Amino acid sequence: MTELVFTECRIGIQSRSWLKTAATYSEPGPGVTRVLGSAEHRALLPVLADWYREAGADAVWLDDAGNLVGRWEGSLLDARTLLIGSHQDTVRQGGAYDGIMGVLLPLAVLSEINRSGRRPATAVELVAFCDEEGTRFASTLIGSSAIAGNFNRDLLAVTDSDGVTLADALRALGSNPDQIDRVARQPEQVSGYVEVHIEQGPILEAENLPVGVVTAITGIERHRLTITGKAGHAGTTPMHLRKDALVRAARAVLVVDELCHSTDDLVGVVGQLDVTPGAVNVIPAEVTMSIELRSPDSAIRRRARLDLMERLAGALDGSGCQWKVETTYEQNEVRCAESVQWALAQAVEDAGYPVRRLFSGAGHDGLAMAHLTNIGMLFMRCKDGLSHHPDESVTTEDLEASGQVIRRFIESWPG
Amino acid sequence: MTELVFTECRIGIQSRSWLKTAATYSEPGPGVTRVLGSAEHRALLPVLADWYREAGADAVWLDDAGNLVGRWEGSLLDARTLLIGSHQDTVRQGGAYDGIMGVLLPLAVLSEINRSGRRPATAVELVAFCDEEGTRFASTLIGSSAIAGNFNRDLLAVTDSDGVTLADALRALGSNPDQIDRVARQPEQVSGYVEVHIEQGPILEAENLPVGVVTAITGIERHRLTITGKAGHAGTTPMHLRKDALVRAARAVLVVDELCHSTDDLVGVVGQLDVTPGAVNVIPAEVTMSIELRSPDSAIRRRARLDLMERLAGALDGSGCQWKVETTYEQNEVRCAESVQWALAQAVEDAGYPVRRLFSGAGHDGLAMAHLTNIGMLFMRCKDGLSHHPDESVTTEDLEASGQVIRRFIESWPG
Repeated sequence: MTELVFTECRIGIQSRSWLKTAATYSEPGPGVTRVLGSAEHRALLPVLADWYREAGADAVWLDDAGNLVGRWEGSLLDARTLLIGSHQDTVRQGGAYDGIMGVLLPLAVLSEINRSGRRPATAVELVAFCDEEGTRFASTLIGSSAIAGNFNRDLLAVTDSDGVTLADALRALGSNPDQIDRVARQPEQVSGYVEVHIEQGPILEAENLPVGVVTAITGIERHRLTITGKAGHAGTTPMHLRKDALVRAARAVLVVDELCHSTDDLVGVVGQLDVTPGAVNVIPAEVTMSIELRSPDSAIRRRARLDLMERLAGALDGSGCQWKVETTYEQNEVRCAESVQWALAQAVEDAGYPVRRLFSGAGHDGLAMAHLTNIGMLFMRCKDGLSHHPDESVTTEDLEASGQVIRRFIESWPG
Repeated sequence: MTELVFTECRIGIQSRSWLKTAATYSEPGPGVTRVLGSAEHRALLPVLADWYREAGADAVWLDDAGNLVGRWEGSLLDARTLLIGSHQDTVRQGGAYDGIMGVLLPLAVLSEINRSGRRPATAVELVAFCDEEGTRFASTLIGSSAIAGNFNRDLLAVTDSDGVTLADALRALGSNPDQIDRVARQPEQVSGYVEVHIEQGPILEAENLPVGVVTAITGIERHRLTITGKAGHAGTTPMHLRKDALVRAARAVLVVDELCHSTDDLVGVVGQLDVTPGAVNVIPAEVTMSIELRSPDSAIRRRARLDLMERLAGALDGSGCQWKVETTYEQNEVRCAESVQWALAQAVEDAGYPVRRLFSGAGHDGLAMAHLTNIGMLFMRCKDGLSHHPDESVTTEDLEASGQVIRRFIESWPG
């Protein structure tokens, strides 16, 4: 592996500077808290627009879904538009990178390209989506689904915990949600969508790689398992006459863990577990638990689901406890387009790094954008794999490395 | 086994009648709720005193610990006193038998003995203890520890959830807590203490026996196990890089269950288990759980504790998770005196039943009374082993059967 030496490191330094400033647009408290339509979000928008203009955007506008868009024309007259972007919002007490880095790092790249005076073939639009995390409203992917043309207008009436509607939150940004349908792009005018994002996991760090090419955004299914035994006095009921729901639940937790350890491209967790009645001296009568399975391949995930049911039956049937499983959520994976993966992999190689492909275990704006166009993602190494946490961290060298990959990607994209 | 036929069944019918009336002295709601010093408790006391007098008590008094005592003199001039009793109070939404049956059934027996005109050798005092459950105040066994002479006077200042002190609650009953020390009996004046109580477990019902002779009141120890792993995104952290505290906790739950299944005279439970942060899509960072072990034999319980620690180490060490165990409670078992057990067993045989010995997995007033004198207990079959529940149930036939045993016990007790 030959690492390029970036003596100037201008992309890394420029994006670091902008990221530091952007992180100050946060509610008080640890880390960064910037939710859709908040005072901090509203204050960041004009600053961001100024940076777009500094970077040579030919046009900058806030669309009616609260997305800030900058357009850089291509050298090809009839070029379709390459969309690049990520989200402006954060979870509560999140970090300085998740989302906004996918805006500011490409912006630094576009600034460098502009500075070089060599316009790429493709037109590029950089989109800072208004909301991906869904922190304020129940719904997520608001900005990206509007652009992709599959926004559900019913959501405009959804309210936050203070009773403010999404429509009013968008108006406070300066958008006109009555015209939100006009934000939708025509597929024939768009050549693809690409996003750069921190990995939110430990793989790249463990393998000492600055970047990875994403193959798919994971599919997710969630279930609620309820195990019903029988409460009883924990001193007076002999062991062999008990129907202890927690003992069975313990076996179910291990079943999920063993299944996921023994299946490639599958992860899963029991994240919630509640015991009733939950007293030190009462045999647990009922346990409810969440079971989440994720895979970038729905065939694997569905096979795993059947396998799970078989294993649960083996662990729970005949125990004297009743059990049932309800599916509470299911979303299929979204594959990254081979064309975009190939172009990103080429750019990684050209920048001097080995190509590591990996899937995204978390959801992203690409889930919505895939309804419009071919998507792809570039993952960046982040410290300890941390995300949604004040300690999110990325080195300036890695910003530079990813920037060089994105630059090569844009410059080689046919448009 | 030869079952006696009780054509008259007077003890069963009389005690059933009193039990039904006593159950009406309850706060509204399901089952029976009668806590120390409540209006219902205060209203029951004079009714109970009347029943004592109807049953031929030579003296009836409320002592300064809130206990209602009735005395039946013996035929032996220098006889020591046999104490018989149980508690007047209930848990919230408890049943009609736990506690008060241990007062009203012996009372029906004493009534029958009185009616027969044949005074037994021993003097008997029937004690309705003011509080055993500890429902209103943090402390339990108030009345029995006062009689046993090991009441902690500091508890008089303990307050209930409304800020009322135990001292004031006792005053409301008509007792004078300033003189509570005078309630204590002299060991040399007491020949023993015996209590009849529902089993609160399913053994007698499973073995089709009306009564059992208690060998010991169980020892109890409780621990708090904390397992600390590492939170992480449940989609982006590969399985082999996780430190999932709940997966380890599941193994610990099974360790406790397996240990108790493989050891005679030991029961145990994990009744409480809390997961942090407890989100469907976050790897559990920390789990705390209660571990309770009970045995009538402290040697067994202490050996089991060491065995538990070895097994936990086997299940948890090297998992990448930290763990620690804190002991939160420990109380040694109290053995029932061989002399009382022998006399009870003889009475059971004389009444025509097989002698089944079993230990009490729950605590009782005998824990306090053992500081004063030799103790013993007779357990009665109860439906489904239920206690502390509105559905507590005992048949009239079983009341009669136990009554016949208690009658034979009193009549044969040397005094």
